[in-house]
Amino acid sequence: MGWLATVKILSGGDIVTIPSKSSNTVWHHATVTRQRRAELNHHQSILLWFTGLSGAGKSTLAHALEERLYQMGYHTFVLDGDNVRHGLCGDLGFSNEARIENIRRIGEIAKLFVEAGVIVLTAFISPFRADRQKARNLVGEDFVEIYCNCPLSVCEDRDVKGLYRRAKAGEIKEFTGISSPYEEPEHPELVIDTTKSLDECVDQILTYLVQRGVYERKS
Amino acid sequence: MGWLATVKILSGGDIVTIPSKSSNTVWHHATVTRQRRAELNHHQSILLWFTGLSGAGKSTLAHALEERLYQMGYHTFVLDGDNVRHGLCGDLGFSNEARIENIRRIGEIAKLFVEAGVIVLTAFISPFRADRQKARNLVGEDFVEIYCNCPLSVCEDRDVKGLYRRAKAGEIKEFTGISSPYEEPEHPELVIDTTKSLDECVDQILTYLVQRGVYERKS
Repeated sequence: MGWLATVKILSGGDIVTIPSKSSNTVWHHATVTRQRRAELNHHQSILLWFTGLSGAGKSTLAHALEERLYQMGYHTFVLDGDNVRHGLCGDLGFSNEARIENIRRIGEIAKLFVEAGVIVLTAFISPFRADRQKARNLVGEDFVEIYCNCPLSVCEDRDVKGLYRRAKAGEIKEFTGISSPYEEPEHPELVIDTTKSLDECVDQILTYLVQRGVYERKS
Repeated sequence: MGWLATVKILSGGDIVTIPSKSSNTVWHHATVTRQRRAELNHHQSILLWFTGLSGAGKSTLAHALEERLYQMGYHTFVLDGDNVRHGLCGDLGFSNEARIENIRRIGEIAKLFVEAGVIVLTAFISPFRADRQKARNLVGEDFVEIYCNCPLSVCEDRDVKGLYRRAKAGEIKEFTGISSPYEEPEHPELVIDTTKSLDECVDQILTYLVQRGVYERKS
């Protein structure tokens, strides 16, 4: 019969350690908690949710911040269109329902990464307040909304991917800022003026993370 | 205009560093690669895909292995029914299509965790070869199939969750091993006899991980 014969699940307990009758082994269930991961990593985990217009610099800022955090020994991961839209959300189109489901899944993955002890940075336009609120409700107090504030005219001038030109030519329908609204955050944890230098933007977020105690190991 | 004005994307390059004309800042895109994460963690990442009957000990073994890896300083995460079925896959039912989509999403999340430098352990019955093969195709050489081999009679005797009793009473339809097939892996990387002690099972996987070089930092 072996080691599972003596299993009992203790209600609400993270750690279940029951000596087996048939060997010296014990049974474990999810003993590696978020707090223990923080002790291993020497930092807390958190979700930094970047939102803003296309071209506002969400992904660039997230990756620059990640590079700085990495150099300081922090465990991070960026979720953006590159690794999510074509992977986990590759089955989703661009309808309202698909957009909502897209954000829901990103929130769920982010929650798993936070549980895994990782500082996770998400970089999606996420233009609607209701969608962002759902992600916030899902993740709870670890949700940090970072509004990458950049005038539409600047984003249009940058037009890194040529999307604004195509949207204005009618080639892309429901493009945020052109033919679909961007709803500014009402109470974001951070507003970053991304017309400033990248270093200034990164420093502003790092300062916030210090204030939040992400760097400190809770004991 | 600021720091995005001078962006160029180099084809195939992980690191793009272009001095901005308007400041001393540079532009980064995904500079924290999987290899650099391995250097930070002092170990490689990999996906350990546990498969087997309900009650075969997949989740117990995964958590016990995670505990041992944690104690050795490794960064891990277990994906199982507890944190996936009610979260990311909470919208899925139990039809054939839902089952396939469930496994696809687990594969996609696991791939993200591997990219993030984490040793990820998945514990799902995943009874069909075709589904597991899809996950393998998605993740590539990092996919390690671990067959938790345990006679059906033993699983029925254990019946930790009372599911076999309910399945045999007709209360659960298409229950693997009772009213739905379990397709044994044909070429799994590991077969674990989970009637043995938990410690023996964990040791067998640790030995494999040493052989795979997961513990060594590639330079």
